[in-house]
Amino acid sequence: MPLPANVTAGAGEFTIDGKLSVALDGFTDQQLVKARQRFLDTLGRETGIPFMRAEMASGTAQFHIQTAGHDKEILELGEDESYHLEVQPDAVRLSAANPLGVMHGLQTFLQLVRVTPHGFTVPAVTIDDKPRFPWRGLMIDSGRHFIPVSVIERNLDAMEAVKLNIFHWHLSDDQGFRVESKVFPLLQQKGSDGLFYTQEQIRHVIEYARDRGIRVVPEFDMPAHATAWFVGYPQLASGKRPYQIARQWGVLDAAMDPTKESTYQFLNVLLGEMTGLFPDAYFHIGGDECNGKEWDASPAIQEFKRAHHIADNAALQAMFTARVGKLVASRHKIVEGWDEVLQPDTPKDVVIQSWRGRDSLLDAAKRGYRGMLSNGYYIDLNQSAEQHYLVDPLEGIADKLTPEQTASILGGEATMWSEFVNGEMMDSRVWPRTAAIAERFWSPQQVRDVESMYRRMALMTPRLTAYGVDYRATSERMLERMSGEFDPEPLRVLGSVVQPPKGYDRGGMREYTSLTPLNHLVDAVSPESDVSREFAEICKRIVAGNATPMDWEKAHDWLVLWRDNDAKLQPMLGRSEITAELAPVSVSLKQTAEVGLQMLEALHGKQAISAETQRHNLEVLTAAKKPQAVLLLMVAPSVEVLVKSAGAGH
Amino acid sequence: MPLPANVTAGAGEFTIDGKLSVALDGFTDQQLVKARQRFLDTLGRETGIPFMRAEMASGTAQFHIQTAGHDKEILELGEDESYHLEVQPDAVRLSAANPLGVMHGLQTFLQLVRVTPHGFTVPAVTIDDKPRFPWRGLMIDSGRHFIPVSVIERNLDAMEAVKLNIFHWHLSDDQGFRVESKVFPLLQQKGSDGLFYTQEQIRHVIEYARDRGIRVVPEFDMPAHATAWFVGYPQLASGKRPYQIARQWGVLDAAMDPTKESTYQFLNVLLGEMTGLFPDAYFHIGGDECNGKEWDASPAIQEFKRAHHIADNAALQAMFTARVGKLVASRHKIVEGWDEVLQPDTPKDVVIQSWRGRDSLLDAAKRGYRGMLSNGYYIDLNQSAEQHYLVDPLEGIADKLTPEQTASILGGEATMWSEFVNGEMMDSRVWPRTAAIAERFWSPQQVRDVESMYRRMALMTPRLTAYGVDYRATSERMLERMSGEFDPEPLRVLGSVVQPPKGYDRGGMREYTSLTPLNHLVDAVSPESDVSREFAEICKRIVAGNATPMDWEKAHDWLVLWRDNDAKLQPMLGRSEITAELAPVSVSLKQTAEVGLQMLEALHGKQAISAETQRHNLEVLTAAKKPQAVLLLMVAPSVEVLVKSAGAGH
Repeated sequence: MPLPANVTAGAGEFTIDGKLSVALDGFTDQQLVKARQRFLDTLGRETGIPFMRAEMASGTAQFHIQTAGHDKEILELGEDESYHLEVQPDAVRLSAANPLGVMHGLQTFLQLVRVTPHGFTVPAVTIDDKPRFPWRGLMIDSGRHFIPVSVIERNLDAMEAVKLNIFHWHLSDDQGFRVESKVFPLLQQKGSDGLFYTQEQIRHVIEYARDRGIRVVPEFDMPAHATAWFVGYPQLASGKRPYQIARQWGVLDAAMDPTKESTYQFLNVLLGEMTGLFPDAYFHIGGDECNGKEWDASPAIQEFKRAHHIADNAALQAMFTARVGKLVASRHKIVEGWDEVLQPDTPKDVVIQSWRGRDSLLDAAKRGYRGMLSNGYYIDLNQSAEQHYLVDPLEGIADKLTPEQTASILGGEATMWSEFVNGEMMDSRVWPRTAAIAERFWSPQQVRDVESMYRRMALMTPRLTAYGVDYRATSERMLERMSGEFDPEPLRVLGSVVQPPKGYDRGGMREYTSLTPLNHLVDAVSPESDVSREFAEICKRIVAGNATPMDWEKAHDWLVLWRDNDAKLQPMLGRSEITAELAPVSVSLKQTAEVGLQMLEALHGKQAISAETQRHNLEVLTAAKKPQAVLLLMVAPSVEVLVKSAGAGH
Repeated sequence: MPLPANVTAGAGEFTIDGKLSVALDGFTDQQLVKARQRFLDTLGRETGIPFMRAEMASGTAQFHIQTAGHDKEILELGEDESYHLEVQPDAVRLSAANPLGVMHGLQTFLQLVRVTPHGFTVPAVTIDDKPRFPWRGLMIDSGRHFIPVSVIERNLDAMEAVKLNIFHWHLSDDQGFRVESKVFPLLQQKGSDGLFYTQEQIRHVIEYARDRGIRVVPEFDMPAHATAWFVGYPQLASGKRPYQIARQWGVLDAAMDPTKESTYQFLNVLLGEMTGLFPDAYFHIGGDECNGKEWDASPAIQEFKRAHHIADNAALQAMFTARVGKLVASRHKIVEGWDEVLQPDTPKDVVIQSWRGRDSLLDAAKRGYRGMLSNGYYIDLNQSAEQHYLVDPLEGIADKLTPEQTASILGGEATMWSEFVNGEMMDSRVWPRTAAIAERFWSPQQVRDVESMYRRMALMTPRLTAYGVDYRATSERMLERMSGEFDPEPLRVLGSVVQPPKGYDRGGMREYTSLTPLNHLVDAVSPESDVSREFAEICKRIVAGNATPMDWEKAHDWLVLWRDNDAKLQPMLGRSEITAELAPVSVSLKQTAEVGLQMLEALHGKQAISAETQRHNLEVLTAAKKPQAVLLLMVAPSVEVLVKSAGAGH
């Protein structure tokens, strides 16, 4: 993943052993040498075979890399990322126009490695590959929860593995300003709880990303989502109150004062510093969710609007955006912003990141703006890989655009907002689903077979640890921690069939602030329950009458496991304050499983169910489907399908 | 672990929540500030609670640290490491003479944290603690396999957790010279396959260790175990041949030429550089296993011996050691060496590290030398925690020494030689057993209840990930990798009851060199099978007639699991070259389990077994106990115990 554009299978396979040596023919530079070393390190983790660093003489090498020329020092939008990979039983040839293409080809090779009865091999194959979209991003929100550098690095490693090329770094928000400013140090000193990146760390991350062919686009969100700025510099704000770092989530009122010259003087200096720190040509200024309440509450701002004939707050924000945009553009940077920055007078080179949907993307493209899609790729919403996978940036809008307008849609970005995620579980929330999104951005449009995607994702997933992310071990640790058990098997069973609620609404279930410990089961489980998905597929086949005997057996075994799990789990739950809330969830699972077993028997024996039993069963499942302990019991809807299919007698 | 010297339980418990703040009263320095931050970070991993970095005002703190004064900048042998810790329901007070003691106290507190029905708490307690021995070390061999800095860091983290205070870093051997030398760069350029530590990395590790109260004692092994030096500088060697980096293991012939002045000139310059790089007062020059064959083969060396009336090679090595020792001493360092450096004329301040046994330690102490024990703590030999735990540096020799001589025995060191270990599985081979050895070095001599040790180790083990080491996730990854399975449950079952062979002898089973991939089951499993140990305990109780009904049930369930595992595992094994060799091991487990079930039934029903059946069963077990695929089936001896106990009719 992502599936290459053109694949032709060959005969035989290439065997990997400790004698493998990889030659850099043609153009060579430090990027390539580092890429080769990373490749060998990863291959070493994939196979456990030590590869010697010396002995890389081209003469004896079986793996030849032919590079035509160098990359630009600072990567730009629309680089040639294509590569040609030929694997034959006795040799591998990888060629590309530049190191960027070589890196992509190396990742493809790594994904082809498999263990066989005669060792680790790669099947013979010829691949011609290039991306569909030039902008393939992952956004990580370091503003709401600070995300340590090591976690960022791991995610960059995984991004390289799936050929994503933009790391969009959301660096400031109401809850934190996360970059060291040397000109305005109170930004981080008062606005971050001490949790910020030093400029040295930022430069390190940029270089780390650059080595992996990834551009870093920083975002400083303005004029709203900026409370943390105002703790140190209240004069920037529209209100006249002292500001504290926000702890609550949501759309807050605090916003910069767009009517004061001093605001732009401050931003001019800060943007000078930050555009110098981040070398990429694009610079994201946010612009989302300014509710205008502080503006409305300020007599001075109201007066300004009247004096300057500014009709409404949208127009006021447009003025702000235009001025800030000019400050950014004066540093030879291209401005990027969320939907809201698109206003009647927005300069034509501004790039629109659409969080609202394809309609705004269509609107932007028609008006001559470049844009990209994030709506549909909000991986913090705990939707399935399938849902994200099937969202196409061009679907339903390409036919309404000229080819030129279509080309102005650059791609998309998966976005990981961090209200309910911190560094600990970041890996396991971003991955593996983001691999499906990466495929959407890279592979040809017609690649959209969900079953194939899940099958290949299942092959990819165990490799993710070799590629760098720590996406499963964390969950284990968290289960142990919350239960105090060394081997919390029954908790693992429960955890495998529940998911966090979709969306942001956890109201009434638990009060969440930025200080809430994320140490409950909801924080430990995967955003997509594989077991529940597989169980749902089996139930569908049972209802459709095309289930295999193995399907029946597997469904039965699972239901028995879930039914009997409660007796093992309950005595454990009460011992910990954190797991105590799971008692009703476990009971729901048991009851759901009991209903499921009953239905399995009825369906297998083609017996009818009494109307009363069916009513009772549906009540059980309706209750089981309600979120409890901030968790959704994902197998309940599938059992409901069985109940409805079993029908009722009278 | 280690158990403190004095513990008095109190009433109630101290609750940990996000409002916890920790005040540094009295003396404060950067060491303490960093120690507090590390403490809060670890506590955050243990609990999942975010602790604010700011808001550390002493006024509102519930956790007070009172430090009397500073540490020495470079830690010395015999520092005051004591601390006093008082936990009460409303407050914690930790006091110590210096930051070193504070760090130990903080680690004790972290180990007391537990999850309860009312949150994470620490029971009220008063602890007065100090170490029994001043030298409590872990040696890691980076010579035979290069061990990455990140792995070293993790092990230093875990060392801090169990209050070890010496990191003995074995930095050169036949297979590699692992430190960057700026004066003799061919040492690392030709002698390390590119796998060495830069001086910057060395300094980083030393600082990292220093922050954790750990001294770093480097070892450069001479005159033997030095082949890697000779690749770049053959003039140092006694032979006249070109040298390659050694790939084979064992005692090799290559040795420095002790008769040439140029050898000492070279060492003088190198030791000047290295004693400057490593600030510790102790410097280890190795000295072990020089077989003298190259000396015997050199006419010039033979002539030198005759001319200087040197009786034998031991005397020649003694001369070498004395001269090298002077070079080290001239840099104000104290020489340390393995047993062999102890010769009639060895200077009195040389410290002897005994790998041969307590007899040489006794000998050294009687002759006025200081020493420490490593024999019995060779954790690379895959012995049980119990075996290591019961080895006491003073046992059987203290009564033969004066109190002063006894005090000259400084402690001991666990040693992790790396013939069969690389960075990947280092954590899981060193831990958790080293915690038992750490307790031996720290806790009072009478603390030696094995059952208590295992019970506390089981509590400690899941916390090790919070303390930094990655000791279980690796094993999972390796099982997946070797089998190509996402969830290799039957392989996990087999892996849980096998162990690597004890000792170094793997002859005939597999040819091992430094280039052999360590990616088999033997490399993935724990050096001590917990399941087998538990099963052995149960079998003992069954035979002794004091097994509980739960014992019988557990033994039965395990035996059924093992018997039925083969059918699930066999189809998987053939798919991978690496797992194919496990087929007979899996069959052995099945057969062993079948015998075990038969015996369980016989013992439970008090039925006699026919002599022929018993003979057959014993044959099965004799075969099962033989190493296969470089693995020992650890449950076979326990089933044998059952067979013998069931007896035979006629």
